[in-house]
Amino acid sequence: MSIPFNDRGLTLGDGLFETVLADGGELVAFDRHAERMERSCAVLDLPAPDRAHLRRCAEGALVDAGLGGVRAAVRITWTAGSGGRGLERPAELQPRLFATAVAALKPTAPARLVTARVRRNESSPTSRLKTLSYLDNILARHEALDAGADEALMLNTRGELAGGAAANIFWLKDDRLFTPALDCGVLAGIARAEVIEAASQAGFAVEEVRVGPEALARAQGVFLTNSLIGLRPVAAIDGAPQQPVQVTAVLMRGRR
Amino acid sequence: MSIPFNDRGLTLGDGLFETVLADGGELVAFDRHAERMERSCAVLDLPAPDRAHLRRCAEGALVDAGLGGVRAAVRITWTAGSGGRGLERPAELQPRLFATAVAALKPTAPARLVTARVRRNESSPTSRLKTLSYLDNILARHEALDAGADEALMLNTRGELAGGAAANIFWLKDDRLFTPALDCGVLAGIARAEVIEAASQAGFAVEEVRVGPEALARAQGVFLTNSLIGLRPVAAIDGAPQQPVQVTAVLMRGRR
Repeated sequence: MSIPFNDRGLTLGDGLFETVLADGGELVAFDRHAERMERSCAVLDLPAPDRAHLRRCAEGALVDAGLGGVRAAVRITWTAGSGGRGLERPAELQPRLFATAVAALKPTAPARLVTARVRRNESSPTSRLKTLSYLDNILARHEALDAGADEALMLNTRGELAGGAAANIFWLKDDRLFTPALDCGVLAGIARAEVIEAASQAGFAVEEVRVGPEALARAQGVFLTNSLIGLRPVAAIDGAPQQPVQVTAVLMRGRR
Repeated sequence: MSIPFNDRGLTLGDGLFETVLADGGELVAFDRHAERMERSCAVLDLPAPDRAHLRRCAEGALVDAGLGGVRAAVRITWTAGSGGRGLERPAELQPRLFATAVAALKPTAPARLVTARVRRNESSPTSRLKTLSYLDNILARHEALDAGADEALMLNTRGELAGGAAANIFWLKDDRLFTPALDCGVLAGIARAEVIEAASQAGFAVEEVRVGPEALARAQGVFLTNSLIGLRPVAAIDGAPQQPVQVTAVLMRGRR
């Protein structure tokens, strides 16, 4: 249950993670999470984990924690392993895999957002991945909590909407559904993809856009998504109340 | 020699590090490193380590590694410790401290730089700190090595010069010495501060500027600094040869 001092995930944030919802012992959308980790490994030039091994590791963590029967969050971590010289990776990477599980309550209250000073760095591929270098997201969330809110609203360095510190954002306006494009420095969220697919199946397209926060003005509703919370309506942004969201239940099938 | 799976430094890059040069058993500029870590803790809202404890930990690592008599790099790591829920830190942080030491050769060849695609995020305070979320720097260095160079030249998201992936940058032009301003997303380097002080003592001011890479054109010399390498001349940028640097030896007293 521990990792050596020289692991690059620990020393430099060189690695990836996934947070998978488990419900009654089942890993929800496991293959989507595994695919994302594989794609992310390719971006970072890391070897990808074996998928069967990844699943056994996640399931083992759930059982070890005695959480097989409840709603739980399984966190899977894939580090670049030990070795190298400073920033430089060793010639042969030997990544480390581990998983942990904790009970996961679903937030019931709508979220209050506050715009964070920390921006997302859309110039970096890491802005679209769940990496072990997540300190900017911690700072953004910390800012939001300090301001009495629940989650940060993050812009990118161009001033465009990106999302929450640990969530994607959607908004309904003029009866159209919008979300920031991935190249705005947006995590390619699993729940985000599911909403886009569900909308498509319901006969309309989610528009992936590059817009500033003024686009949220007069929205008919704003909501956040991630694998653990599913959909969470936004009640207020920077203190301004938002309209309650009605559309979301339709879009999110198979998630509680 | 290991850290638990739930340490926030490991899971989210929530923490800081210092890399201190040790020479014949002496920690070079230890107090400057300790001060930087203390200042950085304040920025990240982390408790700061006790300085005497920090020193003992660093000295212990040097002795344990049997490197008391040689040129070595002591890496001190200060994580946010365990606990919290996702991005949110626990109410009471209990940071972890550890140090490791490795032999450190001084590079003898001038550096070849390649401009990295990954930019530094000057909007984030983490761009000025040595944090455990260093993946963008790893990617920038990786790009440089892939291109057959030694180090990345990093711009910020505004396109201004910032520095290397693990070094600050200076250039001499029109007989004036320049370096990017800290608010360009520049690490507040110890060697950087020493060069600025040495220049001041030699009767001239280093100009801290916000400029694009075109400012390096027709420079009389470009060099990198960090605590381990001291000064390292730059031989080429994106394949274009640079003039050899003569000025640097004067500026860097007390470092080898």
